[in-house]
This record gives sequence, structure tokens and C-alpha cells, in this order.
Amino acid sequence: MTKKKFDSVLIIGMGLIGSSLSRAIYKNHLATNVFGIDTNKDVIKKCEELNLILKIDSNINNYKQQFDLIIICTPLGTYKEIFASLNQFITKPTLVTDVGSTKVSVIQDFKKQVTNTNIQFLPCHPIAGLEKSGPEYGIANLFENRFCIITPINKNDSFINEIVSMWKAIGMKIEIMDSERHDRVLAMTSHIPQLIAFSVVTTATELESTMKDEIIKYSAAGFRDFTRLAGSDPIMWRDVYSKNKDAVLEMLGRFSEDLSTFQKAIRNSDLQFLENKFSNSREIRKLIEDLGQAGTFDPTESNN
Amino acid sequence: MTKKKFDSVLIIGMGLIGSSLSRAIYKNHLATNVFGIDTNKDVIKKCEELNLILKIDSNINNYKQQFDLIIICTPLGTYKEIFASLNQFITKPTLVTDVGSTKVSVIQDFKKQVTNTNIQFLPCHPIAGLEKSGPEYGIANLFENRFCIITPINKNDSFINEIVSMWKAIGMKIEIMDSERHDRVLAMTSHIPQLIAFSVVTTATELESTMKDEIIKYSAAGFRDFTRLAGSDPIMWRDVYSKNKDAVLEMLGRFSEDLSTFQKAIRNSDLQFLENKFSNSREIRKLIEDLGQAGTFDPTESNN
Repeated sequence: MTKKKFDSVLIIGMGLIGSSLSRAIYKNHLATNVFGIDTNKDVIKKCEELNLILKIDSNINNYKQQFDLIIICTPLGTYKEIFASLNQFITKPTLVTDVGSTKVSVIQDFKKQVTNTNIQFLPCHPIAGLEKSGPEYGIANLFENRFCIITPINKNDSFINEIVSMWKAIGMKIEIMDSERHDRVLAMTSHIPQLIAFSVVTTATELESTMKDEIIKYSAAGFRDFTRLAGSDPIMWRDVYSKNKDAVLEMLGRFSEDLSTFQKAIRNSDLQFLENKFSNSREIRKLIEDLGQAGTFDPTESNN
Repeated sequence: MTKKKFDSVLIIGMGLIGSSLSRAIYKNHLATNVFGIDTNKDVIKKCEELNLILKIDSNINNYKQQFDLIIICTPLGTYKEIFASLNQFITKPTLVTDVGSTKVSVIQDFKKQVTNTNIQFLPCHPIAGLEKSGPEYGIANLFENRFCIITPINKNDSFINEIVSMWKAIGMKIEIMDSERHDRVLAMTSHIPQLIAFSVVTTATELESTMKDEIIKYSAAGFRDFTRLAGSDPIMWRDVYSKNKDAVLEMLGRFSEDLSTFQKAIRNSDLQFLENKFSNSREIRKLIEDLGQAGTFDPTESNN
């Protein structure tokens, strides 16, 4: 047997992303053993039932060994505590990375909590996901052909390439970005669409109850795409809005202005304005498809 | 050979829906011959190349024959003219139906233009679609297991069942509804999500150009779902907002209020509010999945 890249990897948070990572790491023969941490008993049980990793525990201090690579895959609100425990736990040079949806707050938390020079941390954000949560929904090829944005704390850190090569090995394309810029871009591509999806679904659910039933029934008309996003993990998203407040509020302000413009055009029956704006939107969709970032939507039901 | 349900069907508008219907009608052996009308030369050429129907023409008056069933599949802005031409053209009892996304305006247009008692019109709305437009994207099973809302002008019309049996034969589930209610429900399940998608994409495209490139690149994070909707036919949608103005403006008002509440909660870091609302949204998603109306999303790219 050829030697694997890592002897042991620890994944903190074995939800959708953590469990997809463990599958991807095994599939690509990157580590001999993958270990896990999760504080949710159901998640622990599912990981054991699904045989996803060698061992899973609720507390890092129950591990008597050290790890080569640690990947944090938990909601952003848990980072402070996790960095504090890693600061204590780690006793040998260890690569540490994360998958968090904001990067400014992650770097702030890291700087506040970590003094241990054995910790070699590269903040990362693999742009990949699904609206499901839980280890049973993870898939090994979730990361293939997707972008992973890295926002190094120091661009000259010698360990950056070791972590980057792990992301590349599971199929990701690497982009380097400043953490502030990352948070603004992601506010627009992810946090705002997600918030709007939650908001549209909220509006629909607060209509009179007979109409609510019909809205669920006829959701195939566009609403279902919003509910797909709104099916995502509530805790994870709650933390995103708390940690990326400024960029989210800025983009939300811009969106509200544009929506008001559409509202006015509808009220005034300005058909030419609507047609022009709608045509422009279509061109953007084409660019995304050409870039191979569109995913695949099947309007029929899967086999169930 | 057993006798088909219809000898001849005419589809007016051979775009995505019209061409999917022709495929579905042939696949389910409902008609001996399907004919078409389209005013777009490219659409005519594609229908001929793809051999989708027996004959396609740009003008109904070039047909020397009559038809058993006529299905209108054009943008809502064309209905007046189409009803006027059918009013002149039809010389024998003919079933007529449509697929328009609003129903109040369709019935108004019909009543204003049609005096010909040979025209047996049932306003319908098959809730099925794709963000693509053009006959090359049509699929025969687009309608399977989806709802078709019918909004009869007179509930006792003897011909209703003949048209209903056609929709059933291509796999649809029939629901009867009042046209005003249809327009309010669809404002929420379809017209508002679509408008918001157009609006989010507009906001993104009007950011500074370097950021725009990054937004396209990292669209896999949620934005792509909005662009999928925003890839739909601009003319069709322009007409929907013109024809369903009141219901759209009402639902848009409600949505804006809810979005402001989320905005305020983010500004005030009201994490409990966000978590509660996000959790409720998730339950709605579950109901839609349970009802088999969720479609199937594959986060990987299709084979291309």
C-alpha cells in the first residue's frame, strides 16, 4: 500500500459538509484514518450506523492522540469555543482549516483565541452545498469542480500549499481572496439569496391557511426553488447573518432599491423596462452555465 | 390501428410548453396529427428540423382545414389577437384551451373578442415549466404528476370533460378554481418568486464589474437558483406582470414587509427570531417534498 497524504484527519462537525468531506477524503485515499467530533447525539449515532469514519466522539479531549489535519465544519457561532479548545489540545504542528461561510469573523475569532504556534490555520470556504443537513445526506463528489476560496491570514505561510493540495485532491479549484472581499461577494451570491428565500417562504406561510395549502400544492411554479434554499440548516444560517451583518445589510439595501424599481414599473405598466431587465438577467444565467457552475435541475421527481 | 382521441390538434405557439405538449400528445397517442402556428421564423425552422409536428405555419389563415382541439401556448399579450382570429377562422365545433399563467385577463380577452359559438373554450393553467425557452428544450413528460388548474367560464359547459381528459392523458392532476383565486395563488407561488429572482440578478449585475465576475464565478452558493428562474422567457414574464398587476402588487407588499422584519432582526442581532423563522421555512419545504412537487436538484453538472 502506498503511503497516504495524511495519517489521521479530524473533522469537527459531522453534518452535511463534514460527512461529505469524510467521504471525499476516503474516496480519494487522502488519509489512513478519519476521526470525528460532534456534540449532537443523533449525528454521532448516524455516523456510526453509516460507518462514515473510524471513530466519533462528542469531546476532543477524549482523544488521546494528535492529528495531522483538523477541519472545522460547524456553525460560525461555535468557532470561538473550538479555537479555544484546539489552543489547549494541540501539542504538535497541526494543519487546521475550516469551511465557514464568512471569513472576517473566523479570522477575528482565531486571532482572539489562538496563541499556540503549533496551529497552522488556513481559513477556507469550499463553495459547495445542498439544502439538506445531516451526515446521511453527504456525498463524496459534492466538491468536484467547485471553487474553494482561501483567505490566508499571512500569504507567506509555508503550510498553505499542504492544505490547498487537500482541497485540490477532492476536486476543488482554488481561488485566493482577501477576507473582506470574500464576505461581500458571498453576501451577494449566497447570504442574500438565502435570506430572500427564507423571507418569501415566510410571507407564503403567513397567508390565510386555505391559501397556504394551495401554495404548497402549486409550488412547482417557482416557489419550490425558494423552499429548496429555505430547507437549509437554520442554526448555520442564523450565525451567518450575525457574523456578516454589515455586508448583508449593504447588499440587502441595494436589492430593496432594485425591487422597488420593479414594483414601480409594474404599477405604471412600463413593459419595456421589464422586458429589458428580464432579458439582461437571462444573459447572466448563460454566463453561469458556460462556466459550469449551474448544477442540474430535473423538473420530474427522482425515484421515490 | 385504434382510433385516436383527436384527429387533428393545433398548437398556437411552439415554444417550450407548446413543443412539450406536441411531444406529450404524440407520446400518449392522443392525436393522429399535430399542427402548429408560430410567428417566429427560428421556432418554425427548429420545429421542422426536429420533426416535432406534421406542419407548422406562421398564420392560421394558411390552413385550409379545421381542427378538433386548439391549444394556445403564447405570451398573454397575444391572446386578444389570437381570440379575434379564432373567432373568424373557426367554422365547426372546436375545443379550445390555453396554458396562460393568469386567468382573469384571459377570460376578459375571450369575452371581448369571441362571439363564435363553435368555440368551446376552457381556460387552463398546467403548472409545469422549465427556465429554458424554445422548442428544442421541450420534453414529453414535463406535465407528468403536475397539477393543471382549470378555471371554467361556465361550470356546466358540456365540453369541459373532453378537454380535461386530454390533460389527464398526458399525466396531469386536475384542480378546479375560480379565476380570481388562481391569479392570487399564482402571484405568490410563481409571479413573486420570479420577480424577486429577476430583481436579485439585476442587483448583482449592477455591482461594480470586478465583483460581478466573482459573483458569476461563485454562484453555486445559492445565487444560481435565482438565475435559473431568471433564465425564463422575458416576453412571457413581462406580460404576466402586466396582466396580473393587482395580485402581484398585493403579494409584493406583503413580501417587502416580511423582508424588512428580517432586515431589522439582522441589524439588531435578534438571533432567536432568525432561528425561529428559518426553522418554520424548513417545515414548508418538507410538506412540498412530501407532496411530490419538489423536483430533483443535482448539485453536480450534467454530462456536458
